[in-house]
Amino acid sequence: MKDGNCIHLGVIGLGNMGSEHCRNLLAGACPELRITAAADLRETRLQWARENLPDSVRLYESGEALIRESDCDAVLICVPHFGHEPLTVAALEHGKHVLCEKPAAVTARAARHMLETAERTGLTLAFMFNQRTNCLYRSIHDLMASGIPGRMKRMNWIVTDWYRTQQYYDSGTWRATWAGEGGGVLLNQCPHQLDLLIWLCGMPESVTAVCSEGKWHRIEVEDDVSVFLSFPGGATGVFVTSTGDLPGTNRLEIDCERGKIVCEDGTVRFWQLPENERTVCFESHNPWYRVDVQPQILPTDGENPQHPGVMRAFAAHLLHGEPLVADSEDGLRAISLSNAIHLSGWLGKTVHLPADEDLFQQMLEQKIAGSQKKTGNDLTYDTSHHSTGQAVDPA
Amino acid sequence: MKDGNCIHLGVIGLGNMGSEHCRNLLAGACPELRITAAADLRETRLQWARENLPDSVRLYESGEALIRESDCDAVLICVPHFGHEPLTVAALEHGKHVLCEKPAAVTARAARHMLETAERTGLTLAFMFNQRTNCLYRSIHDLMASGIPGRMKRMNWIVTDWYRTQQYYDSGTWRATWAGEGGGVLLNQCPHQLDLLIWLCGMPESVTAVCSEGKWHRIEVEDDVSVFLSFPGGATGVFVTSTGDLPGTNRLEIDCERGKIVCEDGTVRFWQLPENERTVCFESHNPWYRVDVQPQILPTDGENPQHPGVMRAFAAHLLHGEPLVADSEDGLRAISLSNAIHLSGWLGKTVHLPADEDLFQQMLEQKIAGSQKKTGNDLTYDTSHHSTGQAVDPA
Repeated sequence: MKDGNCIHLGVIGLGNMGSEHCRNLLAGACPELRITAAADLRETRLQWARENLPDSVRLYESGEALIRESDCDAVLICVPHFGHEPLTVAALEHGKHVLCEKPAAVTARAARHMLETAERTGLTLAFMFNQRTNCLYRSIHDLMASGIPGRMKRMNWIVTDWYRTQQYYDSGTWRATWAGEGGGVLLNQCPHQLDLLIWLCGMPESVTAVCSEGKWHRIEVEDDVSVFLSFPGGATGVFVTSTGDLPGTNRLEIDCERGKIVCEDGTVRFWQLPENERTVCFESHNPWYRVDVQPQILPTDGENPQHPGVMRAFAAHLLHGEPLVADSEDGLRAISLSNAIHLSGWLGKTVHLPADEDLFQQMLEQKIAGSQKKTGNDLTYDTSHHSTGQAVDPA
Repeated sequence: MKDGNCIHLGVIGLGNMGSEHCRNLLAGACPELRITAAADLRETRLQWARENLPDSVRLYESGEALIRESDCDAVLICVPHFGHEPLTVAALEHGKHVLCEKPAAVTARAARHMLETAERTGLTLAFMFNQRTNCLYRSIHDLMASGIPGRMKRMNWIVTDWYRTQQYYDSGTWRATWAGEGGGVLLNQCPHQLDLLIWLCGMPESVTAVCSEGKWHRIEVEDDVSVFLSFPGGATGVFVTSTGDLPGTNRLEIDCERGKIVCEDGTVRFWQLPENERTVCFESHNPWYRVDVQPQILPTDGENPQHPGVMRAFAAHLLHGEPLVADSEDGLRAISLSNAIHLSGWLGKTVHLPADEDLFQQMLEQKIAGSQKKTGNDLTYDTSHHSTGQAVDPA
């Protein structure tokens, strides 16, 4: 590092997310990261940078130029999805650590290429799975890891509170196109929940999905997805998401042999069973055995540091070897699940993981070949008010 | 009628449900119905009848004998599922009205035969869909019928609070066998919810199901089912049920263009939108439009008359032409959906409704041919404590 106490950071992409990250960094949310460079392809966004970033930040007209010419230690990549792989690989090859926005890439193959490049270069590759910092999900993760709930039998996640209007999709030419994003709600909104699903419940072994394209909006990609999941060991799950439901729901239920967990409305409730259900089933003499347990509210630390939390952990990893929030394997797993869901929806049948990467690539290329040119108003929004996911303890 | 104010009723089958109905009738829960005859194939249950029913009730050693010899006006059929069709048809042919336990029959074909016999004879055929009497579901039905929520977009029902231990399945030789029941949780526990689903949300046009047989118990039939449903007009749904989850969940969500309905924990909440979401989607200039509506608790009359409610409505229909709770069409619809779910699970693919009845019959016969003989302790339980479904206002 140039500076033993601080990572010099280049921010690539100054759209919605990149500019939010800049605002957080400039507000002092991550004292261990100092912006020393920034890049965007668009003159309008460079103008924004001139007006909003300190003069000490060197500006570049492309991420490639920043990677080549800046002497920053690490880059934060916040460009449209297809740019994640080439920019991550270029940065790693130029000796820069990478924190990349979600999804890791559009394809599992690309994410694997990124992971392998990080391994070969010995540099750090991390992903912006900021929902992992939410104390609600951390408390569920800790509970599952404690072994107290026992083996998972079923999970059910309704995450339909990603509402977007047509105006959202009209705001960028790349948005909600196969050529621009490589998918819809699975690639843009749900990488968080797919990552959390794997983090909390483990990796499914197969998926059976219905992905409806342009169901609620004038877009060519999916905006409504229902998935049935099978996990190793026999547990099953259902995952439902949409950007067309109002007011929408965000309710995660995980049923285990020794209890039930429900995360909804800013709290996690846990019904802990006095005995393992599998034992009760075969040993109770009561045909209609019932258990009168009241749910406990799972205690949390109340912290939900979101993007700044991921960035601070990234810096602490580089400076002191502390754990990342989400590493290159996590990024690969989430996009592998996403690709499998897409493929299942396209084929109309169950897909086992790992999904056929050649077939996925081929079908995605067909989608891209048929992608419609789109006009957009190229707006950049302040996203700070809507990016925290499930709020904590709203009451 | 023999008696202008009162229907003379024969009860066929004195197992769990038949004896509960007798207890209700003798306790005066349905003054318009008088038990004048009862039948069971088992001497133990006839002995129960001698000890518990008034001397005026004439006892028969079979339902067929009761139908042939008793001069009752109507019969209440509470025998194992495969007996519903022949006994209903025999009763109708002998001039007796029929109230039959759920499911209508094991196959849609059999239910249609029952319906056609009722139409030909001009007699009444009704089904014991007692969950329709629950004020929670009646309030949702009234709300949906009012048009206030607008068109349905999505539904999601987790009904995993049908917990049963192995002891339950071991309690009867017919239980949880293809030959004895014709299915598992779909045929025994869920006919109620399948009926309610149709009553509240309409008939799906296709289903894609995963039905796991003997997943949680040593039984040959399904005890765990997940279904994806498509409705005419584009709405979709998910239905998940199991007899292996503890403590289980009963949560119904219905998302409509002008609001969201959630029924859980004994209350119905309704988030009413100020505008139709379909209008908001295309007219709002806010890409992340949100609406800050608080849910209203849907008012109910607090009544949940269950089986006595169905029986009283049946009597009032025969005496005064008042509406039934569930008629022969309702019975046919529910078993048609059930058969389609089974068939989808067996075939591992989407099944469009109406399902292929020949194929269903053929596959069911294969299941029955492979059915294992089973020993059971032939217990009859007092079911009065667990048959009310979702409780009302438990607070």
